[in-house]
Amino acid sequence: MPHYKLAFLGFGNVGKALAKLFLEKRRDLQVRYNLTFTVTGIATGRHGMVIATDGIDLERALEADDLSKLSDEPIAMDTSDFIRKCKADVLFENTPVNYQDGQPAIRHIEIALENGMHVITANKGPVVHAYRSLKTQAEKMGRKFYFESTVMDGAPVFALFRSALPAAQLLSFRGVLNSTTNMILTRMEARESFEQAVAYCQRIGIAETDPSGDVDGWDAAVKVAALVTVLMDVPLKPQEVERIGIRDITQEQMELARREGKRWKLVCSARRVGGDVQAQVFPELVGIDSAMYRVEGTSSIIQLKTDVLGMLTLVEDDPGPHTTAYGLLADFVNAVTA
Amino acid sequence: MPHYKLAFLGFGNVGKALAKLFLEKRRDLQVRYNLTFTVTGIATGRHGMVIATDGIDLERALEADDLSKLSDEPIAMDTSDFIRKCKADVLFENTPVNYQDGQPAIRHIEIALENGMHVITANKGPVVHAYRSLKTQAEKMGRKFYFESTVMDGAPVFALFRSALPAAQLLSFRGVLNSTTNMILTRMEARESFEQAVAYCQRIGIAETDPSGDVDGWDAAVKVAALVTVLMDVPLKPQEVERIGIRDITQEQMELARREGKRWKLVCSARRVGGDVQAQVFPELVGIDSAMYRVEGTSSIIQLKTDVLGMLTLVEDDPGPHTTAYGLLADFVNAVTA
Repeated sequence: MPHYKLAFLGFGNVGKALAKLFLEKRRDLQVRYNLTFTVTGIATGRHGMVIATDGIDLERALEADDLSKLSDEPIAMDTSDFIRKCKADVLFENTPVNYQDGQPAIRHIEIALENGMHVITANKGPVVHAYRSLKTQAEKMGRKFYFESTVMDGAPVFALFRSALPAAQLLSFRGVLNSTTNMILTRMEARESFEQAVAYCQRIGIAETDPSGDVDGWDAAVKVAALVTVLMDVPLKPQEVERIGIRDITQEQMELARREGKRWKLVCSARRVGGDVQAQVFPELVGIDSAMYRVEGTSSIIQLKTDVLGMLTLVEDDPGPHTTAYGLLADFVNAVTA
Repeated sequence: MPHYKLAFLGFGNVGKALAKLFLEKRRDLQVRYNLTFTVTGIATGRHGMVIATDGIDLERALEADDLSKLSDEPIAMDTSDFIRKCKADVLFENTPVNYQDGQPAIRHIEIALENGMHVITANKGPVVHAYRSLKTQAEKMGRKFYFESTVMDGAPVFALFRSALPAAQLLSFRGVLNSTTNMILTRMEARESFEQAVAYCQRIGIAETDPSGDVDGWDAAVKVAALVTVLMDVPLKPQEVERIGIRDITQEQMELARREGKRWKLVCSARRVGGDVQAQVFPELVGIDSAMYRVEGTSSIIQLKTDVLGMLTLVEDDPGPHTTAYGLLADFVNAVTA
């Protein structure tokens, strides 16, 4: 029975949810996929790091305030050293996203691939800033670089095209891909002000102290860039996505939409034009004839037009760290059983 | 470069759409999947059969009134003989569905598997009547038995669980899976009578002369049984699905629904109850809060609850023979590249 050594780089909400899911699915992975695993390294920003070549007790790691106490083995000098020393087969890269240049995550992934690991991440930075080079490096090493959870959490968008829709060409897509703005708009429909809605999102932990990454459409643009780069095979930077955020939508506009039976959505879209791709993130009014109409709160939706099917729509309701974690687990299973 | 010999059993709308799609995708299959193909046999009910070990000219086959004129090679005595003689690597079984016992399609599939072929079908009969035995036989032979197009045409429902949602357990689903009844209900909303709506569906070729298979919910029950059997791993016969069709929905009920802002849908559903599964096909009133509300005409939808994600919804708009054909092509690529 194949055994896999796993390393976790980043152990916040998502990393911990992944560890819990691995514990829950241990038996299932054994029975259905004939595989076992141990976690040989965990590195965090604020709770230290631990390397244990015999395997870390995950239950204890989930409770630990200082991870370094879980093992006597010497810890690493820095993150690069950690990746090499934990001698894992798979690295889960879950450090915070850097929208500007994708670092240091790209460097982490390169080191892991160099050392023969599969790399799985929920981090959008490396996908939009270094997809082609990382994919090429992974192929050269006979390893996988997967990132299902970067768009629509655990809902399988990338895997859909990789395995369930072979020989299909993606012509265009439209979707609602940023949870925070969708929640803000949903709250504003219930007559909260923009500021109140942002404060609510900050309270429940889905908006940053500086909410501009979400409300100005940057996160949505990054997701559009990732989808276009990977699924349309046209490298696109977030800056190349035409972008208008939701900051200027007024209560008067919300009221008008309500009277017309419509809703404001921050719509992501892209379509092939010749050999190029036109991509946008714009607020749009949608009516009940659109599948986007009922996508409220943190739910998300993507509508895919391919050369082989009519429109195919995927909706994910009620996402959270546990669904992001599932995307990472699914990538793991697909990487090692491919 | 691997070369595959294909046999088509059944060459109606779907078989012909598949042949056209193979012609369109020939270059793509070569470039992206490094594979080539020839069709070595086509057997039809009304236009004869042809076997040509060097490959049949598909363009001519699509036009031919009598297929036997396309080759000088001796044709087969019967279907079983045809399957053996065309010495294909892959059989596309697209004979008409038999809801009662799945024959003769089951026998065709058994013979093909015995002779070392992958088998791909859009025929629901074998899936509900012989899934486990055919799957076991295929595994024993190291071959695939795939049937994506049996539910929601080319939309990837089975492939989703096979490859994009590993280690997920399907707990329940709800959906609109029968196009004909959905079209009838959509027409009745536009104030046609039940009889007029049925006649319309017969005219556009989506309802049989005897429409009872659709309007009494049998086709929907067969699809529910297929999904439960395969995705929940609980063998279920169509007769075990509680079933009420749409025959008794009156114009008064349609009018009442309209006034309440609701729509009648023939809803398919199943959920695990202990080790068992409860499955139903019932007409239901759905409101605009439901994703089913806007699924009109021949479009279909399935909402999946698993142990790892929130609700995941898949909608297929505008299906047709070309999308069923795509499901068959996708199964082929997945079977030979797995």
